[in-house]
Order: sequence, then C-alpha cells, then structure tokens
Amino acid sequence: MRNNNRQWILRNRPKGEISHDDLELVESDIPEPGDGQALIQNIYLSIDPTNRIWMSDIDQYMPPVELGQVMRGGCTAKVIKSNTPELIEGQFVSAFTCGWQDFAVVTPLEISPLPLKRQFPLTAYMSAAGFTGYTAYFGLLNITNPQPGETVVISTAAGAVGSVAGQIAKIKGCKVVGITGSNDKCKWIEELGFDISINYKTQNVLEELRRTCPEGIDIYFDNTGGEILDAVLTTINQNARISVCGLISMYNEDDPVPGPYMYRNILMKRARVEGFIVSDFIAEWESASKELAQWIDEGKIQYRVDVQQGLENALSTVNMLFNGENQGKLILQVNEE
Amino acid sequence: MRNNNRQWILRNRPKGEISHDDLELVESDIPEPGDGQALIQNIYLSIDPTNRIWMSDIDQYMPPVELGQVMRGGCTAKVIKSNTPELIEGQFVSAFTCGWQDFAVVTPLEISPLPLKRQFPLTAYMSAAGFTGYTAYFGLLNITNPQPGETVVISTAAGAVGSVAGQIAKIKGCKVVGITGSNDKCKWIEELGFDISINYKTQNVLEELRRTCPEGIDIYFDNTGGEILDAVLTTINQNARISVCGLISMYNEDDPVPGPYMYRNILMKRARVEGFIVSDFIAEWESASKELAQWIDEGKIQYRVDVQQGLENALSTVNMLFNGENQGKLILQVNEE
Repeated sequence: MRNNNRQWILRNRPKGEISHDDLELVESDIPEPGDGQALIQNIYLSIDPTNRIWMSDIDQYMPPVELGQVMRGGCTAKVIKSNTPELIEGQFVSAFTCGWQDFAVVTPLEISPLPLKRQFPLTAYMSAAGFTGYTAYFGLLNITNPQPGETVVISTAAGAVGSVAGQIAKIKGCKVVGITGSNDKCKWIEELGFDISINYKTQNVLEELRRTCPEGIDIYFDNTGGEILDAVLTTINQNARISVCGLISMYNEDDPVPGPYMYRNILMKRARVEGFIVSDFIAEWESASKELAQWIDEGKIQYRVDVQQGLENALSTVNMLFNGENQGKLILQVNEE
Repeated sequence: MRNNNRQWILRNRPKGEISHDDLELVESDIPEPGDGQALIQNIYLSIDPTNRIWMSDIDQYMPPVELGQVMRGGCTAKVIKSNTPELIEGQFVSAFTCGWQDFAVVTPLEISPLPLKRQFPLTAYMSAAGFTGYTAYFGLLNITNPQPGETVVISTAAGAVGSVAGQIAKIKGCKVVGITGSNDKCKWIEELGFDISINYKTQNVLEELRRTCPEGIDIYFDNTGGEILDAVLTTINQNARISVCGLISMYNEDDPVPGPYMYRNILMKRARVEGFIVSDFIAEWESASKELAQWIDEGKIQYRVDVQQGLENALSTVNMLFNGENQGKLILQVNEE
C-alpha cells in the first residue's frame, strides 16, 4: 500500500479542454479517520462528462468544485481502517464524490457499501450495474416512458450510459437508433441489438434519420446537444419526449452556445424536453439495481469498460471523453484491488 | 347584408412581415349550402400569431395553408341559411378554421354553436371565455401545475392569452411576474393583480428578474421565445416547468433562429419544457369553459378586446401582433352583428 496520499487540486477553471494549468497533483500524508469515520483507498475513479461541469463555475446541479479543493469524482474504494461498526475493513464501497485522490476519510453516510457477495466484477458496479446503469434506466424509463413499437434515438450510443439506454429500449420493444462516432462503435451497438447505427462523423445524421425512420422519432435520449439534437428535433413526431441526460458538445465551450435551431418544434410537435440527474430517483435505486442485475445476468444488457491506469493520468483520461476515444465506460484505476 | 363574398387568398409564403404581395383580396359569389350544410357569415375574425405560422410551409402542428387557398382563421359567425336541423338561422357559432372571408359553407361538425343565452358579449367568447381563455387555462394548469407560493413568469403578459394566464396563476396563489412591451401595458397588468411588471423595451429583463425574484422562477408561460426565454432560463429553480404556448419572436424570421443560449439549464436545473396546443385538451373544454365563465363573472379574470374594423384591413391587423400595437385580444370585425 502507498505510504502517502496524492490529490488532484483544482487551481483554475478550465477554458476549453482541461490542461495541467487547471489541476495540480500534490502529495500529502494519509489522513487519519476519527471516531465514527473510516479511511478508504480509492481503487477505481469513475471518469464522466460531469467532472468537466464541476470544474466550471456555471450554474449547475451541484456546487462547482472550489479552487484549491480536491477534484470531485465518483469512485469504488476499499475500507482500509474503520472506526465505525457500519464499515468493515477490506469491504468495498462506492462513493459519489470522494474525489481524485488515493485516500479519503469518510463517514458511513457518505458512501454506499457494495454487496459483500458480488455477482459481477467491481467495475460492473461502476457501469451497467451501478450509477451509469441507473442513469440510463431512469432517464429512459421514468422520463420518456417508452412504449412497444416506438422509435427511440440515442446519442453517444456506444458510451457507458447510451449503450445501456439503447438496450433497455430494446427490452421495452422499441425500434432503436444509435448515433456514435466511429464505424467500430457502430458495429458494436449493432451487436448489442440496436436496429440502426449512424456514424455522425462520416454520415449526415438528419438524412440518415429521415431515411431509416420515415415513421418519425418518438423518443430521444440526449447525451450531446448540438447538431445531433437539431437533427432529431427536425424529425420528431407529435408528443415526442426528449430526455436530457447530457450535453457534452457544450461543456468545453467558453462562449455562449446557441440552443437548437429547431427549438420551435417543441411547440409545433407539442414535445416534452426534460432534464434529470440520477440522484433525483434515489428512492428507486434499489429496485432499478435488481432489474439491471437481472438483465445483465440474462445477457440482455452487455457493457464494456475502458480501464485506464494511474491517478497521474486523470487529465488525459477525462479528455478522452471529449474526443470520443474511450470504448465503453471510462474508469481510471488508481490502486490495486 | 353583402351581396357578394370577399376572400383573402394566400399567394406567396411571406418573408418576414406579411405584405400585400403575399395575400390577395378577391371577390366571388356567395356560396350555396347543400343538404346538411349551412351558410355562415363571419362577424369577427380572431387575429392570432398562429395565422403567421399557417402562412409558412415550416413543419407545424397543422398543415400550412396551401397557396391559392383562402387564408385560415378562427371566427365568430352567424348562421344565415341552414339546410341542417342542427343549426338554426340567426344562431351564432364559433369556428376554428373557417377563414378570412365574408361567407363560408360549413357542416355542423366544423363549428361549435355559441350558447343561445349568452352571459357575455360575443367578443368575450373569442377571448377570455373562448379559445384564448382555454389556451391560458390548459397551458398553465395542465402543463405546469402551479402550486401556491410558486413564482410564475408570463411573457406577452398584456396579450390575450398572457393576461388570462397571469390572472389564473394569481387565483392559484402564485407570485406572478408579467413581461410586456410598454409602460401602459405594465400598468394594466398590475391593475389585473400581477405582482411585478417588466417592460422589456426599457428594462433589462434578466436584471429585473434577479432583482424582483431572488427566490428564482418556478414556472414560465412562454409566448415569445428569444431573449426573454434566455433571461428566464438563467433564473429558473430546480424542477422548473416551462409551458411553450408561442414563440412569436421567431415567426417572422426567414433564417434559422438559434434556440436559447441557456438551453443547458434544462439539464442543470432538471427543468421540463413542454409545448402544447389548445386542441390537445378538447375533452376538457367544457369544464374549463364553466370555470373561466365563473371567474369572469366574479371579476377574478378581466380581459380587453381590441376590435379593428374591415376585412380589407386583415394584413395590417395581423402585423399589429408583431409590433405589439394591440391592446388585448385582437379581433377584426368583418360584418355587423
């Protein structure tokens, strides 16, 4: 085990892509847990587009990370030393905000223990069987209520959330179109059962949507915003539902970004556009978790994890999301299991 | 009674403001009703922003008016000759789409009879007691579900729909902010009971919203889109609801208009944005009609009608909407009651 702690400290608000001027990796002593606390060692960091949002001081769903503070991030960690009967040494836990560092001191309220008998590898609980899966589950089912026979479009469809959302839409009997950024990713989502794949880097998304979905789009699970959102808005049916899960095309922009040019179709098609975050549905996490685990076990939901190595590589790893380089849920392993 | 018919025929799709190159007033014979039909004479035309939408061939909630056809428009009309037992000569009817003309032949299915014993003047049934009132009623109550103590913003607040929506929000116990385009209109909506009025032509809407609503905005009843929508999106609370009733700032634009720059707040604030049209709620019109009539009777809802004269002035009358010149529900009287 390491004999010191490393922490990524936010020094400046990034302009565009994150750089080493924005965050600094500093070393410090391993903290000591007090009464009722535990020391945890991070094993895996969940690398997500929301990390980029938290670095900016725009209005957002949580407070931004303050300058001078440890960068916030979800993780899977191991309990190293426990001064509370609620946590057992050696136990694995998941924490939403424990940060980009090797060690953290937490209270039981701040973490969720993982099952002691695990059905899947640890990394599954950071992807399809964890928050990522919940995000797809609630963002699709609770926000859009898909019905058999409806046409569902998913952007960043080979991504951690999009790939699960598309598979859930298939389970619900929908026609599913996935939009992604490479032919390999297109091939993979077709293997997952998506009916149609569109490579937005080489194809005209609007033309492809019109050609492959002459019946029109009923549901859009949006992870991107931008031009893809406009193409979908152009082809929606009456009473379409748009679940706003992410807007990754906008996060690196410093100047104001125009909203969709086809915004008027929200009126013309009496569409509903609704944003959400997974923590809105905390009361339903347990039941979602069971259903997702069953679907994974039955092979109805497949997932990929892309495990990068080394806390020191956090910045280049998060930038992979914006370049579309990751293959599946992006995870940074910072210590050995 | 006139001895011929006049009809406004759509010749070209307008670019920007409607002009006499776009519509032509032609004369023809008064049509003869067949079996099961009736001849009606238009008394009042309802002049609405949606007339402008119907002239364009953009994707919309009804088919656009075809070139060479009579311009579509809502009206209040009198039955002149009836070949059906369901309509009585001399009876007044309301029709959603009978057109910019003196006379039309209709079937009972195409029109709604007005009450034979009327509680209010005919023009009330074209404003607060009719479709305009229904639009405010359903767009506020069914789409946003306002709760006592919530803060509601209304754009075009002195307009036919906005003024009623604001008064209904007051009935429901909300704090109500009206945005309008003149000091006279501000004064009038304050007389109606709006808590705050903002003149968007002389005041900075975003600054005024921040100053007068430090608690944030829960509900926005949008008739305009554009910069006002952006100012509201900047100040919304979590789980805000935005009812998209109209987007008048966009209708005269030929080039694509960017959507709101603060679109991202739909995600950040987990907001819901939903378009609607009044005909979606046809099953509830009757109950809404009774409730609105009661509120008008009790003085809880006041309304203004702006009655212009002469079918030949249809084009300049509809353009008044885009210049904000009308004072209350805009109506064009085309024949004597």
